[in-house]
This record gives sequence, structure tokens and C-alpha cells, in this order.
Amino acid sequence: MTNANVSEVKALVFDVFGTVVDWRGSIIAEGLAWSETKKTNIDWPDFSDRLRSGYHPTMNRVRTGEMPWTRLDDLHRLILDQVLQDLKINTFTDEEKTHWAHVWRRLKPWPDSVEGLSRLKRKYIIGPLSNGNIALMTNLAKHSKLPWDVILGSELVKHYKPDKEVYISVPYFLDLRPEQVMLVAAHAIDLDSARKCGLRTGFIYRPNEFGNGKVGVPDHAKRGDFDIVSADAIDLATQMGA
Amino acid sequence: MTNANVSEVKALVFDVFGTVVDWRGSIIAEGLAWSETKKTNIDWPDFSDRLRSGYHPTMNRVRTGEMPWTRLDDLHRLILDQVLQDLKINTFTDEEKTHWAHVWRRLKPWPDSVEGLSRLKRKYIIGPLSNGNIALMTNLAKHSKLPWDVILGSELVKHYKPDKEVYISVPYFLDLRPEQVMLVAAHAIDLDSARKCGLRTGFIYRPNEFGNGKVGVPDHAKRGDFDIVSADAIDLATQMGA
Repeated sequence: MTNANVSEVKALVFDVFGTVVDWRGSIIAEGLAWSETKKTNIDWPDFSDRLRSGYHPTMNRVRTGEMPWTRLDDLHRLILDQVLQDLKINTFTDEEKTHWAHVWRRLKPWPDSVEGLSRLKRKYIIGPLSNGNIALMTNLAKHSKLPWDVILGSELVKHYKPDKEVYISVPYFLDLRPEQVMLVAAHAIDLDSARKCGLRTGFIYRPNEFGNGKVGVPDHAKRGDFDIVSADAIDLATQMGA
Repeated sequence: MTNANVSEVKALVFDVFGTVVDWRGSIIAEGLAWSETKKTNIDWPDFSDRLRSGYHPTMNRVRTGEMPWTRLDDLHRLILDQVLQDLKINTFTDEEKTHWAHVWRRLKPWPDSVEGLSRLKRKYIIGPLSNGNIALMTNLAKHSKLPWDVILGSELVKHYKPDKEVYISVPYFLDLRPEQVMLVAAHAIDLDSARKCGLRTGFIYRPNEFGNGKVGVPDHAKRGDFDIVSADAIDLATQMGA
């Protein structure tokens, strides 16, 4: 490996939504299949963007202390209820609402994710460092064959990213020094927060995360902005010597 | 599957030391190799039994509140220091003491464990429910290729088994009902404690855990004592339809 910044890294932890899995494409695909079966008429790209738009504001209610600690599965249900109300959709049964609140447990990985992670796993400890709770991340890994060694993230410290408690929990739980841990993400704010906690940073470019760009635009990075700047998870594995 | 008691099970969580890995055989084997290299003369069966003898009393200091929450890796260091003192061994460097406190991260699985777990993983969520902390369990899984989906256990709730907090944490973290979770162990006290919390129970017979029996004797069970009574992890997988 030629990059001295990452020569001590023993563990890579990953942002998941957008970085490892394609939330928008997965929700739209599942929605279209649902409409086909249920003979409903829902604008699924708009529906998925509305779910995503609720994400940060709802999580910030927990981060600011307005709401007590609440797991992301449960926040997803609150967001879904609001979207259904806004769109005046009142045909979902309670069971169907649970099914849709849990759509985040069934997202599909980007085409390179499983191969990249599988290669990295041979050389490093790998795990999610997501705002998703343990049940969500465990079911998602089963569904999408993400070969994690360990599930880390928000629920273990009852804080949501970018709170520093989440980042510093990784060296603590893995008994490593901060410079032995790399956060991998497609989002600069996540990586910047990890760097402030002494972690190494790996950027993956995900140009298609936000589709038409209504609820976000993909971050770009150039060599040197982070310890590793990669085109996808396979490129990341190559750059990490795995 | 013919056993109605376990028809709802979605996740199997495992006791690890003695049930999945052979702590005594592994420590003795590593010790003998160490003696060969270092030209030391240590009675490794006795050494491993002394380490094990320190396990419950030291953990109970945490369980009773005499000591604050302390991770098992750190308790293992306390136990090691005591054993070295008792045996009047003063040749270990600090680095070597860390190496030996971490011998529990390098234990070898019983011959059937990896195959049994791999089969179970295809049908169920599987994870350790050990008193070992996250770093210990994660490193052990890497070392011995234990294919866990998630690392659960004492550290997530800062309680040691058989405290009920550890058992009830599994349905909570996995978003399951207690009867959807099975604890698998070679030790009746662990299974009895899990059953009191509503979990299903799977016994594996491990006749060779304690060697000469100086620090313990293997538990036996007959059909009906637990929801599943199995001869090894492969038999468990078969009985669970995996």
C-alpha cells in the first residue's frame, strides 16, 4: 500500500444509506411492484424523496433533545405516517405501514458494494456505522448479503451522526486507536465529522444517490480531500490493498 | 421442522466459551507453542484452569456492584496478573501480558462449529450472546471464521450473564418477540436463565470442555430438558431444519 495515511488502519466502518445501498432506486422499484399488485397509483420517485426529506428533520428532533432516544425504525414509521397524511393516502393497513416503515431493511446494494466489502473483509474488520438501528442493519445485511463482521452505529451509543459520540465509539468498541479506524462514506459532512474525531476517511463517489436531485446532490471529492478518494467500493478495496 | 416449540424462531444467539470454541484446548496448545519458543517451563493445563477459575469470581465482582462495569478483556488481564503472581512467574513483559490477556480472542472452534453455524446462517440470524466484549468477539470471529450476522452480548447492556438484562436485550435489539429467539449453550444455568426470560433454548453437549474436570464438569441433558437437545452444532442445524 502506498498511502501512508492509512497504513495503520485495521477496521473500516461504513455509512450505509447512499454509500453502500441505493435507497432511492430500491424504494422506487419496490413501490412500482407494489402499485402493480395493489392497483394503486402513487408517484414513487416523489414518495421516496418525501420519505428522505423527513429523515434529517426527524432525526434532529432526537439530536436536539426535543424527542427522547428513538430508534431509526421507529422514526421511519413517524416519517411514513406524515408522508401518507400529506399525500392523503388512507388505504394502507397497519401491517402495510409496518412493511413500508421497514422498506429500509430491504434496500439493494450498489452493484460494486458486495464485491468491494468481501475483498475488504479478508484484510480488515468491516462494519456499518449507520444511523440505522441494530435490527434494521442486521436485516438489511441478511437481505443484501452485506458481509459485516460487526454491527456498530447509532443505537450502541444512543446518538445520531454527526454527533461525535458515534464516531468515537468505534475505536472504543473495537479496542483500536482512532487512526486505526476509517470511516467510509459518500457524504463529506459525515467524513469531516469523523476526521475531527481522529478517524481516517474514505470517500466513495455515488453520483446516482439522489436521482433527479430534488432532495440532495452527490458530493464530489478530489484526491487529497480525504485519505482515500474512490470511485466505488471495488476501487476502495484496491486502494486499501485488499 | 417437527418441533413446534421452535417453529417461530428467527434468531439463534450463542454462548461462546465452551459452546462454540474450545477455550481449554486452545490455551494449552498456544501455551505449549509458547514454551517451545520461549524455553519456559509452565504447566499449561494448570495455567488454563487457573485462568478459568478466576472467571466467575472476577465477573461477579462486577455483577454485585463491587466493581464498576469493566469489559471482559480487562477482567482477563486482572485474572492473568493474579495467576502470574500466584505462580510466581515474573518473566512476562507488558506486551506479553496483553498478548496472553487476549488469548481469548484466538480460541479455536470445536470441529463442528463453523459448519453448523454456516448452515444455520442460511435460515436464521445468528450471533454470539457472550460475556465477551465486542472487540473480543469480533477478533475471535475473524480469527476462527465464525460467520456471525451481528455481535450481541454483555457489553451492549453492561451486564454479565446470567443477569436477565443480557437475555432480554436480544428480542429488543433484533426487534423480535422472546419466543422468536433461541439461546444455544452447553451450560444449563445459561439456558435456564434464558428460558425464564421467555427465550427458546438449545443445548449442545460439549463433553471435552473441562478436560480433566478440575474446574468444571460438562452438563448433560436429555430430550425434553430444553427445546432442542443436540450432540453438536451440525446436529443443531439439522434439528432446526437448516
